[in-house]
Amino acid sequence: MQPEELAKTIDHTLLRCEATSADVEVLCREAAEYHFAAVCLFPHYVSMAASLLKGTDVKTCTVISFPFGADTPRIKALAADEAVRRGADEVDVVINVSALLSGELGLVRDELAGIVRAVRVRGVNTGHGQVIVKAIIETCYLDDRYKRLACHICEQAGVDFVKTSTGVGPQGATVKDVELLRDCLDAGIGVKASGGIRTAADAERMIGAGAVRLGTSSGVAIMEELLA
Amino acid sequence: MQPEELAKTIDHTLLRCEATSADVEVLCREAAEYHFAAVCLFPHYVSMAASLLKGTDVKTCTVISFPFGADTPRIKALAADEAVRRGADEVDVVINVSALLSGELGLVRDELAGIVRAVRVRGVNTGHGQVIVKAIIETCYLDDRYKRLACHICEQAGVDFVKTSTGVGPQGATVKDVELLRDCLDAGIGVKASGGIRTAADAERMIGAGAVRLGTSSGVAIMEELLA
Repeated sequence: MQPEELAKTIDHTLLRCEATSADVEVLCREAAEYHFAAVCLFPHYVSMAASLLKGTDVKTCTVISFPFGADTPRIKALAADEAVRRGADEVDVVINVSALLSGELGLVRDELAGIVRAVRVRGVNTGHGQVIVKAIIETCYLDDRYKRLACHICEQAGVDFVKTSTGVGPQGATVKDVELLRDCLDAGIGVKASGGIRTAADAERMIGAGAVRLGTSSGVAIMEELLA
Repeated sequence: MQPEELAKTIDHTLLRCEATSADVEVLCREAAEYHFAAVCLFPHYVSMAASLLKGTDVKTCTVISFPFGADTPRIKALAADEAVRRGADEVDVVINVSALLSGELGLVRDELAGIVRAVRVRGVNTGHGQVIVKAIIETCYLDDRYKRLACHICEQAGVDFVKTSTGVGPQGATVKDVELLRDCLDAGIGVKASGGIRTAADAERMIGAGAVRLGTSSGVAIMEELLA
């Protein structure tokens, strides 16, 4: 894979609450320079990033109910809608893992479907075009049966991507999980691997396993490795 | 301090996304049995907890924008308002640490003040009575100057408590931080210590330093230690 192809799989990510607006500026500058797919940052910074990235080929992505996913459906949908209104092109939504593990499958699906609907309408009405929804299923808390169930629910809800991890839990993406997700999802739904991707070899392993998007805070290091 | 007095300082806490509704039921049962101050759980479980705790002396507390605090002011206020509408007696709100460290002091204060206003109105209108707002300042990311600044902002915003930590960051409450917060806050504002409180000795140290509320997931172990 060519470096410029790999760059376009990377969501250049900054999700540390002690990072400042100056760090967000650096993140956006790097993303434009390396032509990453998107920056991924907190809702508070969406307007700023969207403005800094105007005219570049880099999208603005944010996280909803991050990292635990246990907010209410209404607040999650409102947060996603507001993010798109403020300039987000993509939203990475943490599913309600606790509800899933409690057997409340309808709630998990309907909540996600509500978010997909909210951002689609908002995206069209603001002339934004297609807003991408990625569902984070936090694989580290799920056995294989639950991982398949989560994929099925995400499919039913109409999301665009299933993302392995928040990066906050005890484990991030594994090759095995990316393969499992790729295997059980419709071909039209992408897999985003995230958590623990720090080197070009990590990135290539995840892409080899079927990921088409990577969430990492090591994007610059990975690109420098490839370009060296 | 008598065991029953100490029990009334404890927010019996369950903030793990892999915990299920069965775990929440156990949490509420334990809280009623030991007469803790409150249960502290995710917004998704507020209605359930409020219903399970009806008729007991235990309050329902939830967290807002947990654990990073980097949602937008509007979504944080809506989440707090909804939590109270669903039965929360107390809300623990993570301040926007990133905005604080970026020098956006007005934003941090106005956001908190907006939340205080929203829950006060909702509390009165629903006959709930006084809803308590605790601001989590996440001391592990702040030097002493910022800790004092955060306390000053919390005072200006009209919160009832300042809480040291989310328990998710690299460090929880320390005796030194509890003393610092107690020292610089108006006498009418309480200090809640949280993160890393696991034994009766930990609890007594925090109370000795000036905390009047403790956030811990080890409430039962602490009480059993004291009652033994």
